[in-house]
Formats: sequence, structure tokens, C-alpha cells
Amino acid sequence: MPRFFSDHPPIDGELRITGDDAWHIARSLRLRLNDRLTVCCNRVDYSCTILSISDSEIRLRAESSSMSKEPSLRLTLYAALPKKDKLELVIMKATELGAERIVPVLTEFCALRLTGEQFAKKKQRLERIAYEAAKQSGRGIIPQISDIISLDEAVSEMRSMDLGIMLYEKGGVSLGSLGLAPGEEKSVGLLVGPEGGFSEREARLCQENGIKTVWLGPRILRCETAPIAAISILLFLNNDM
Amino acid sequence: MPRFFSDHPPIDGELRITGDDAWHIARSLRLRLNDRLTVCCNRVDYSCTILSISDSEIRLRAESSSMSKEPSLRLTLYAALPKKDKLELVIMKATELGAERIVPVLTEFCALRLTGEQFAKKKQRLERIAYEAAKQSGRGIIPQISDIISLDEAVSEMRSMDLGIMLYEKGGVSLGSLGLAPGEEKSVGLLVGPEGGFSEREARLCQENGIKTVWLGPRILRCETAPIAAISILLFLNNDM
Repeated sequence: MPRFFSDHPPIDGELRITGDDAWHIARSLRLRLNDRLTVCCNRVDYSCTILSISDSEIRLRAESSSMSKEPSLRLTLYAALPKKDKLELVIMKATELGAERIVPVLTEFCALRLTGEQFAKKKQRLERIAYEAAKQSGRGIIPQISDIISLDEAVSEMRSMDLGIMLYEKGGVSLGSLGLAPGEEKSVGLLVGPEGGFSEREARLCQENGIKTVWLGPRILRCETAPIAAISILLFLNNDM
Repeated sequence: MPRFFSDHPPIDGELRITGDDAWHIARSLRLRLNDRLTVCCNRVDYSCTILSISDSEIRLRAESSSMSKEPSLRLTLYAALPKKDKLELVIMKATELGAERIVPVLTEFCALRLTGEQFAKKKQRLERIAYEAAKQSGRGIIPQISDIISLDEAVSEMRSMDLGIMLYEKGGVSLGSLGLAPGEEKSVGLLVGPEGGFSEREARLCQENGIKTVWLGPRILRCETAPIAAISILLFLNNDM
């Protein structure tokens, strides 16, 4: 069934979809009165039928609701800014797999150094990618894309989480040794470096702040592959994949 | 250290690199006499020094050798032909992660239907992608890219393997229930569908032939994401990631 997101829960059993999504429903999908679709609002899926339809607004009746199938692991991906458009791939795949938030981080060896203003221009496109991937994969939320932060800020955020993980190509423990149990509700921060990896100073900073250094094995994964592999394994360990 | 592949093991302690790779070493990397590089030949890494260098041929002395870090799981990915250039992404990522062979499969719901001749034109590019990804990720082999085969042929190949797995969005067991143990040497065939998934007839054919139906959880992964996630989890279970 087609799936859309709404910021607002039903009022008196009714929901509205406006903007691009309304146009998409009316023109691309060519849905009609009484056709059904799912509207997801903050981790709840509403099964709806169409009450009225125009290019700019769809009114819907919520017939039933159920909890969205969100992972019990609340995963924030801290991704050091990669080159070219690799962040787009990372956001798309992390969204499909189940990440809750994606935070670009500026680290020492980032080759791409965007100012806040330059990133602001890109951000709308990145949010659109997260939105489309969330819709297509059946997520219960649209992962939030944050502004770029420094490694110090990322480390400070991760300190307040249940588990902080840093992927480090120079060695560390296995993801299997972090004590993740099936179905457990935990907040996890996953930090992944840029093409050039982390400096020793950065690795030390993380370790001194209780972030676990994890090694993904003897092959060298690209900086866009490592988070996809790690998120897959983390959600598998959480019994959600 | 720069890494290259050779089809031929050292003769009297000497190796040669010719063609594009020689040009790359001489012109792009600008290596010189006595510089060091690694040449990998059939799962053995030779640590070499340069004896002579020209744009067309590099002669090397193999100083020492060690086994390449290849997974003990020998994994063949049977990937139903996806749309656009997604097979390129799948080959790149499967190579980095550790697949041994990648076989495009024509299934009922493949939207892209290439003839053998059309695929032959693409194949050289796909092999180049596998080669570059193998070099960059430190593989001990270059994964073989096969010609397109039918699902019947894929099923017949998988019957002769230790374990056959089909990712099926309509349900199945978890990858964790397949009895994969750390470090075990097994041949595994992993079958992944196209955008439209598998037909019920195809799923039944696989099940009747002892192929395990695996479900990757409640979110719907794109056909290029599912194999990346599944290979990551399989190699993690094998203690190789």
C-alpha cells in the first residue's frame, strides 16, 4: 500500500496530506475516492481511505492504527563528511536499514570541508533522500539529518548514550562483544571516519570518553560501506534484521 | 602499501606487472627502484621491491609472502539483474565485503532483460569494478563475475553448496538460525531478488531444492541494499567482520 508521512496525528479520525505528496497521490499514483493508503505519524501507521482528493490536498479517514515497525535500538550515525555525493548513499542506506538520526561530523582528515552555509544548501536534498527512503522502506519515522558538528560535539553527545561505538581500521573489538541483546532498547551512537580514517589523537579522544573502538575485520571497507555493514550487524544483534 | 594482482606466482623470486597497472605504478604512483608494493597472486600476498620500472613493465623481487586475509566462508552472490547501474554498486560492495563470486540471474520479475550479447558489453566494466574494489579493500582474489544465468541454473549450482540462502521479503528464518559457526569453512550461495521480488513459483522452487528462505526484518530493503546487509551479517557470523 502507498505510504506517506504526516506531522500531525488524526483529528476526529481525519488526516490531511498537502504539498508535493498530495500532487503525487492525485497525479502520479492516480488514486481515487475510497482508495486506501497508509499515513505514518510519529511511529504510528494509520490505515486510511480517501475522503476527498485534489492536486493540493487529500483528506483521509483513519480506519485503524498500529505501531510502526521501528528498531528497538535507537541508532544515531555520526558520519565524518565523505567526498563527493557519498553522504547521499550513506543517508539512503542508513534510513532503509533503520537509523534514527544521521549527523555529519567534521574530523581532521575530512577532505571535503563545507561551511555551515554550503551545507545548508545541500541539506534540503539530503532530507529529501531520507524522506523518500523512509517512505519506500516502511519506516515509522523520517530520520533527522543534523547540521555538521565537530568531533568534540559528537563525542559529547555520545557520552550521554547507552553505547558509543567508533569504527577504527587500526583495530578494536568485534561488534559481537558489546553486550547487545535481542530486543533491548538502547541508544547507540555509531561514529564512522572519512576516507582518510581517524587520527590517533581522535581515536584517543574517543577512547578516553568511553567510546568503544570496533574493528570490522581484515578487509578495508570504504567509508560509505563501513556504516552500512555496521548498522546491518547491530540491528541483526538486536534481533531486528 | 600499494597493492596489485598477478595471475602468475613468482618465478625464481621474480614477478612482473604489465599493462595498465604498470603505467599506473610508473606514472600515477610514481614509484621508483627499490620502492615496495604488495602483489597478490591467488590468495598469497607477496611483499615486493621494484627491480626495474618502465611504463609498460615493472619487474619485482618477492621478498616475503603471507596468506591473504580471505574469509573462510566462500560466498557466491546470485543477484537478480537489477535496474539501471545498481549491479555496479552491488559488485563493488560485495567485493569489498568478501564475496568470492557474483552471478547475475534472470528471474521472472527482472525489469532489465539483457541478452547475452548486451551483457557481454557490460561485463568488462563490471570486472574492472570488481578488480578495483578488490585492490582497494585488500582482497586475496578478484571476485569472478559470471555470465547471466537462469534461476533454474542458479538453484542447480546452489544445490551443490554447503548452504543455499534466498532473501525473501514475504518471510523466512533469521540469518542467525542457519547454524553458521565462527571460522567454519563453508560454501554459501546467497540469492537476492530484483526490485519486484520473487514470484511464489520461484520461492517454491528454491524451497523444494533445500534453499533456506531468509527474512531480513520488517523494513523493506532495496534490492541493492539487501545483499550488502546479508553479506555483512553472514561474515560477522563467520567471525570475519
